[in-house]
Amino acid sequence: MVAVHRFYCTLLSLNHQSPVIDDPDEVHHLSRVLRLKAGDEVELIDGQGGVARVTLSEVSKSKVVSRLQAFERVPALSRGRIVLACALPKRVKFDDIIEKCTELGVDEIVPLITERTEVSPSIDAMSRMAVRFRKVVLSAAKQSKRLWFPKIHPVMPFKSAVDLFSSSSNGLFIPWLEGARKPLRETELSTLAFGKGNVVFFIGPEGDFSPQEAAYAIRRGATPVSLGETVLRVDTAAVAVIAYAHIGISLT
Amino acid sequence: MVAVHRFYCTLLSLNHQSPVIDDPDEVHHLSRVLRLKAGDEVELIDGQGGVARVTLSEVSKSKVVSRLQAFERVPALSRGRIVLACALPKRVKFDDIIEKCTELGVDEIVPLITERTEVSPSIDAMSRMAVRFRKVVLSAAKQSKRLWFPKIHPVMPFKSAVDLFSSSSNGLFIPWLEGARKPLRETELSTLAFGKGNVVFFIGPEGDFSPQEAAYAIRRGATPVSLGETVLRVDTAAVAVIAYAHIGISLT
Repeated sequence: MVAVHRFYCTLLSLNHQSPVIDDPDEVHHLSRVLRLKAGDEVELIDGQGGVARVTLSEVSKSKVVSRLQAFERVPALSRGRIVLACALPKRVKFDDIIEKCTELGVDEIVPLITERTEVSPSIDAMSRMAVRFRKVVLSAAKQSKRLWFPKIHPVMPFKSAVDLFSSSSNGLFIPWLEGARKPLRETELSTLAFGKGNVVFFIGPEGDFSPQEAAYAIRRGATPVSLGETVLRVDTAAVAVIAYAHIGISLT
Repeated sequence: MVAVHRFYCTLLSLNHQSPVIDDPDEVHHLSRVLRLKAGDEVELIDGQGGVARVTLSEVSKSKVVSRLQAFERVPALSRGRIVLACALPKRVKFDDIIEKCTELGVDEIVPLITERTEVSPSIDAMSRMAVRFRKVVLSAAKQSKRLWFPKIHPVMPFKSAVDLFSSSSNGLFIPWLEGARKPLRETELSTLAFGKGNVVFFIGPEGDFSPQEAAYAIRRGATPVSLGETVLRVDTAAVAVIAYAHIGISLT
């Protein structure tokens, strides 16, 4: 089978016989950059495991209409979900964290506001962020050939994230630079992740979580862990734990 | 003990009673940015485990002279060395790979030219690169509080790197997208790394290693491995294997 170009199409459209691509970036890329035309074959993905082979029937500036040739829904991996809950960093772009963790198979990402987070985005800024995050996910998911896209949560306070995941997760891990903690490698991550619940990593901001925040998470079942002998920046720590989980529980 | 500022000083200087800082960036940072003066206390590190408490005795534009108060040489971790041999990527900066892997405890980094590497730096460009790489290492090592700096090799052809490490290493791993390979997590990395030799990861360029290159490495003992279900970009793969090794063999 010849490799064909792949485009994103919402779930709904994939489910009928004439899937429509209306995401402006995708339409632009298809019609302007690649100059594809009616009659060309492409693949459509919906980010929920759906992948369709279609023939383009109408290419305009605002949308692309196609005819379904074949459709398959690939099931998600049969393991618990890997969740990254990470403080919005000051110096680096959260986009880069989303990009690399998407490549590395993360299932959910939660941008956190913590006590020591030095950015406080307005509601407007959060809306713009969400739009940008969607684009980053789409691009990284296509690049890494993921059929299931990760879910990006809205920005939320640290304690809300702890509450959200503490009842539904097999393992909550909070890398922390102080106090009693054990190496992450001693936590039987793979046993946890093959279970039913989520595995959640909380990554603090520059300056780390406050003792009150760490205590709050620990009371709700989080295990304080160490990631090794060195001090990691926010983005490095985020990518490192997801890489460790991804490689550590990978079946292939 | 109050946290004091830390500066880099060559090994030689640390070994006598009046250590001299002459790295221009370090001198600038000390005298211009932090405006430290004679009489102030700082720490000096030499990147080889040496750490000294000194009092500044002379601060000028070109150099800083100090008086030794206390000196300690901290031994390196008692494990094999973790080596990253990574193709020079086309789109991202090798600097970013060096930065993150330095934070993540890598011991040696080898920038590779491979068959499908699309950059071919001139000798001049390689010299400039080496200077820049040194700065990146210094900054990342200080940031992550490493006392032993990683060694950055000169840019070399892939086969030379394989030859360089194949006799002295317990494990050579080549993540590859084709052919028979096993998940990295099944390779007993920690057993290997606690042995005497090096653990070396080869990361290919955009477009991967050629079959000839992979075969060459495999003949010399490299194990082809998979890093999971997704396709990773060069920089993500590099950071991911080092994060996996760092967390996977960490003692604390």
